[in-house]
Amino acid sequence: MFENEDAGPDATSAALTPKAERTRAAIRDAALRSFRDHGFDGTTMRKVAADAGVSIGNAYYYFPTKTHLVQELYVEVQEAHRAAALPRLDETTDLVERLAIVFRTGLEQLRPFHEYASGFLTAMIAPESPLNPMSAESSPARDITVGLFREAVARAKKNPLPEEFAVRMPQALWLGYLLLSLYWSYDRSPGQRRTERLLTQALKLLKLGLPLTRMPVVRGPLRGLLDLVVEVGE
Amino acid sequence: MFENEDAGPDATSAALTPKAERTRAAIRDAALRSFRDHGFDGTTMRKVAADAGVSIGNAYYYFPTKTHLVQELYVEVQEAHRAAALPRLDETTDLVERLAIVFRTGLEQLRPFHEYASGFLTAMIAPESPLNPMSAESSPARDITVGLFREAVARAKKNPLPEEFAVRMPQALWLGYLLLSLYWSYDRSPGQRRTERLLTQALKLLKLGLPLTRMPVVRGPLRGLLDLVVEVGE
Repeated sequence: MFENEDAGPDATSAALTPKAERTRAAIRDAALRSFRDHGFDGTTMRKVAADAGVSIGNAYYYFPTKTHLVQELYVEVQEAHRAAALPRLDETTDLVERLAIVFRTGLEQLRPFHEYASGFLTAMIAPESPLNPMSAESSPARDITVGLFREAVARAKKNPLPEEFAVRMPQALWLGYLLLSLYWSYDRSPGQRRTERLLTQALKLLKLGLPLTRMPVVRGPLRGLLDLVVEVGE
Repeated sequence: MFENEDAGPDATSAALTPKAERTRAAIRDAALRSFRDHGFDGTTMRKVAADAGVSIGNAYYYFPTKTHLVQELYVEVQEAHRAAALPRLDETTDLVERLAIVFRTGLEQLRPFHEYASGFLTAMIAPESPLNPMSAESSPARDITVGLFREAVARAKKNPLPEEFAVRMPQALWLGYLLLSLYWSYDRSPGQRRTERLLTQALKLLKLGLPLTRMPVVRGPLRGLLDLVVEVGE
């Protein structure tokens, strides 16, 4: 839907008058606060409109469904992810360390939503849900995160990937990040420390496994696996 | 709930009179047919009771919620999985081939439900859902599948796992099977052939990776990773 050039006022604020833009921003901010404070299930268009000081009809004009508000949340969370990760990527040219930065800064952005993970998961998991991270509607947020992994892979000088994997890897890593987020959703340990430990062990194994990506006997099946993994949902 | 000795008539038919047992079986069969023909969302207690020729009150006496009916489905599907896998495990002593049998016969049982995967996923994904495959309520079905993986690992003579991994592996493999099922749910290719190809490539890589489990530098992080993986949801 966001790829549609005829998209309505929910898709872009570029064509709005200054007043309309302020109204849209007020609704958006109220929604983001509500998602943070009350989760997916606890957020309604009615409450968002009231908090933003606009009529419910006006709120629906800018955001026809709660789904449109969640897409705003996705983009905001991923923009914060990018802002946290990009400056830190300059710290190292080591591939595994760069990936660690993207994964860790990503988990940090999710933190405020942990107690509400359940409601979001339920809304996100169906293959045809517009809130599914793999949906066309979720592409603005997804493109940011895949772009971060691409950046992490592309400028790695130490332990770089063979070219054929460097192309497929950003999307596969993004799917790995989704799985890590799923583990995190289920993680009831204090501060979700268990997820951090899981990531640490997985990165150690990745580092040990990287030299294998240069062995011909490994390359074939690995390329086959990555091709299929990134085709998920097609 | 199934671990509760005071569980009601839904948990076991052992204490029922022959007539009650027939009634329970009729409701159960109607529910399983409905899940196969109409999916999770298309199955209601009212319709199940009507199909079984009992009153809705009677149906609720045996199965207080739709959740209880889904647990029957889980167990039936996994019993069919066991019946399909066990005899075939005698065909080979090779670990990877034995795992392939368990994964493939498992996917075969899921086939009738593919068009309804979406409704089941939505009901299953929340960490606190009794329909979550990792819940206490789902343990009867889970125990069957984990048991199959234990059997596949325990009697492998060719490519066997080091003892320390053989202990952790059945549950980790079961989680891998859940992930494969998730990929399958999203797989829109004809006959879900893409999922089969993914499994084939993953098993090839597993076979190539098995010798590494004997290297001390790999064992530590791998043990750490497996420990954390099987603790998911704790």
